[in-house]
Amino acid sequence: MDSIKIFSPATVANVSCGFDVLGFCLDSIGDEMIIHKTLEKGIRITKIKGAELPFETEKNVAGVSALAMYNAINPDCGFDIEIYKKIKPGSGIGSSAASAAGSVFGMNVLLGNPLDKTELTKYALKGEALASECEHADNLAPAIFGGFTLVRSVDPVDILQLPTPDDLYVTLIHPQIEIKTAEARAILPKQIALQNAITQWSNVGSLVHALHTNDYDLLSKSLSDVIIEPHRKQLIPYFDTIKSSAIDSGALGCGISGSGPSIFALTKGEKIAKHVEKAFNSVYSKTNIKYYTFVSKINTQGIKIL
Amino acid sequence: MDSIKIFSPATVANVSCGFDVLGFCLDSIGDEMIIHKTLEKGIRITKIKGAELPFETEKNVAGVSALAMYNAINPDCGFDIEIYKKIKPGSGIGSSAASAAGSVFGMNVLLGNPLDKTELTKYALKGEALASECEHADNLAPAIFGGFTLVRSVDPVDILQLPTPDDLYVTLIHPQIEIKTAEARAILPKQIALQNAITQWSNVGSLVHALHTNDYDLLSKSLSDVIIEPHRKQLIPYFDTIKSSAIDSGALGCGISGSGPSIFALTKGEKIAKHVEKAFNSVYSKTNIKYYTFVSKINTQGIKIL
Repeated sequence: MDSIKIFSPATVANVSCGFDVLGFCLDSIGDEMIIHKTLEKGIRITKIKGAELPFETEKNVAGVSALAMYNAINPDCGFDIEIYKKIKPGSGIGSSAASAAGSVFGMNVLLGNPLDKTELTKYALKGEALASECEHADNLAPAIFGGFTLVRSVDPVDILQLPTPDDLYVTLIHPQIEIKTAEARAILPKQIALQNAITQWSNVGSLVHALHTNDYDLLSKSLSDVIIEPHRKQLIPYFDTIKSSAIDSGALGCGISGSGPSIFALTKGEKIAKHVEKAFNSVYSKTNIKYYTFVSKINTQGIKIL
Repeated sequence: MDSIKIFSPATVANVSCGFDVLGFCLDSIGDEMIIHKTLEKGIRITKIKGAELPFETEKNVAGVSALAMYNAINPDCGFDIEIYKKIKPGSGIGSSAASAAGSVFGMNVLLGNPLDKTELTKYALKGEALASECEHADNLAPAIFGGFTLVRSVDPVDILQLPTPDDLYVTLIHPQIEIKTAEARAILPKQIALQNAITQWSNVGSLVHALHTNDYDLLSKSLSDVIIEPHRKQLIPYFDTIKSSAIDSGALGCGISGSGPSIFALTKGEKIAKHVEKAFNSVYSKTNIKYYTFVSKINTQGIKIL
């Protein structure tokens, strides 16, 4: 096999209570990438559609992660990478992670899968660092491993795959406003109340238990964020209204996806997810803000070969 | 049945990463209590052995929890309570919780089990509050439910029962020094670094996952406390030496039991637990501090009828 076409999914990081550690993988939105094995050595970005991104390998997220892997294993070939961007950069659903993970995943398949998912994450982190100025894996891990993940550490890479309840769906709204990651970081306090931290780790423990026991009620109670959301929600217009509309429509919980501006809701079943989508639309259609919404099942596989 | 004899176990709260929420139940140490159903109404403490504790029902932890339950359900009888204290008050292994939980558990059995474990916890909290000036359930929950527990909330009572790996043992050392709970609380910072909180909730999530997957390596990595231990260990002589000796002897982890001064280590199997006990002895036998050590399996049942 000399070429491969892949689907590199969007992801939701933090999942309310699990800032910087939890994430899950989406199924209905993701980038497509085609990777060709070439006789000529080196990594080249040969096509980019759907977003204005640099073609220079060293300045492109997918290129940087590909180069990190390429230089480490030094294969007897090269790779051309085509990127069909479907995830808007800056949406808060892991656009850069999809690019960074997709290139190394595709190259690995074309080389006969010499690397495991942990090693792929290690190289993908280099691309993610280009986009966000730090190595964080809370979007990469769900993209590469699928389902729900918990990032224990990035150095060394230590990812836990958590179970996914059967009937879990996501509704997402992306208000098309720009939030700079730096701004979303700067708004967070460096110090937090011990009492709030206790609430948060109680919820993280509960959420992991809920995933293991298929307990939707407990999952719902655990989807709470007393530390990050109160600060970041100020950057997202109508956040409280959107959140209330999700809960009123039967969502298990609703929160900021990554550093925003996208907002996710988790639901039991597709029917409620579509109710929530309707509710999101009825809030945002009254505003002048461009937005889109979608419904997705949790993607338990991660990146897929098309 | 008009009388019942029970074993009300010692417990370890916090479990390194899970301050104020996690706990587990011990098997080889606990109070014994005998509870008699009487024609005469009311609650009486009729015997106390092994500790200097008040006989007045309203001033006795076991009496206060018993009264709370008694007044709520108003049964057509009374109860006499005999307490054989084996858990030293102030040891940090849930002495007051054992008393508070034991009386309500025993009364409930004698009444034909009208209350579930959540309701028993609600009344036991009233006794625990007498001892510690606040309603906390991190020792009560493992005593009543057994195994590992996560306290989501005390009002309303919301306890999760976590699975216990088959071969998990505990080694414990109780240095017989006094640490006032108030002092152990006062030494804690009200504000903590967000970065440390993230580490802690990553570990809580990992620990819950490790319990569900029988993953001893992950359990070991998760048994870390970057928030409470650095402060409280100052109150416990030779804490660092004890902890190093446990890890060097093969323990999965080692930390402060509750607010101390007892120190626990978790091990895979009894053999390593006994190695750790020997190591604890070799550290403390060189000091002038009175202490005792013991090894216990995790008690997955909680309070037992003898």
